[in-house]
Amino acid sequence: MARTAGPDEIDKLWSMIKDVQFAMMTTQDEQGNLHSRPMATLQHAGFENGALWFFTRAPSGKAHEIQNDTHVNLAYAEPKTQDYVSVSGRGQIVRDKDKIKHLWREIMATWFPKGVDDPDIALIKVTVDSAAYWDAPSSVMVHAYGY
Amino acid sequence: MARTAGPDEIDKLWSMIKDVQFAMMTTQDEQGNLHSRPMATLQHAGFENGALWFFTRAPSGKAHEIQNDTHVNLAYAEPKTQDYVSVSGRGQIVRDKDKIKHLWREIMATWFPKGVDDPDIALIKVTVDSAAYWDAPSSVMVHAYGY
Ligand SMILES: Cc1cc2nc3c(=O)[nH]c(=O)nc-3n(C[C@H](O)[C@H](O)[C@H](O)COP(=O)(O)O)c2cc1C
Repeated sequence: MARTAGPDEIDKLWSMIKDVQFAMMTTQDEQGNLHSRPMATLQHAGFENGALWFFTRAPSGKAHEIQNDTHVNLAYAEPKTQDYVSVSGRGQIVRDKDKIKHLWREIMATWFPKGVDDPDIALIKVTVDSAAYWDAPSSVMVHAYGY
Repeated sequence: MARTAGPDEIDKLWSMIKDVQFAMMTTQDEQGNLHSRPMATLQHAGFENGALWFFTRAPSGKAHEIQNDTHVNLAYAEPKTQDYVSVSGRGQIVRDKDKIKHLWREIMATWFPKGVDDPDIALIKVTVDSAAYWDAPSSVMVHAYGY
């Protein structure tokens, strides 16, 4: 049963994912196949109003898949600290220029060499429905959010 | 267009995933939500006949989800070596005792303290449809398998 997450749950979840540089974002294609790809965590974007943000190219496999089926999973794996987090949510393509400029950091030029003025640049807003984490290999799953 | 993967592609893919201790396995629930969880890579199981193997408990969320929708994604992320791999495939619950005994290693007792005689123990066989990898943050996606 979904319920609203409390501030402690939000803090715990964000503390586990903010230092994982890249999430693996899974989406589903029209045939039902699940595809994932590494996506840079925007540490400065925080985890506010239940949403996580990523940069994307608007014409791309994942943007297309999200427009077709908004369900996404974000998997955060950090072997060094044995942090494993699964985030289930809904993706949305956002093209708001102010938001793009606000979230832009020079490091993103690795994937978007033309910068914020790239006509194809966009954001993926993931509204989190639920999340679970494991903080050691032997640990059981902890429902962190929205359960 | 799917085509059969050649031996070089299989070797390259396996060389990238075999040392990643835990894959994040994503499956879909009845409502369409995508869930992932860390799953121990069975290095000794290899990648033969296009299949990857994992231990599971037969009555478990993921087994239930796979029985309902066989599509799975395996995301391998190794920040240390900057290896990122996405494997798309179909999952199947396998209860064959000989196969379970053959794949069993003592390390699995972390999650299955009762060992191979646990009545709930089973395997997930993932038959790989396609895979992609990135071997540096700035690298483009490489279709490694089945494209
Ligand atoms: C470490 C790493 C981080 C990446 N971060 C992003 C990112 O933040 N945004 C993005 O659009 N692509 C990023 N990429 C590229 C994507 O993984 C992917 O190749 C590209 O977005 C196209 O994916 P698609 O065809 O599934 O849409 C990154 C690649 C690597 C290797």
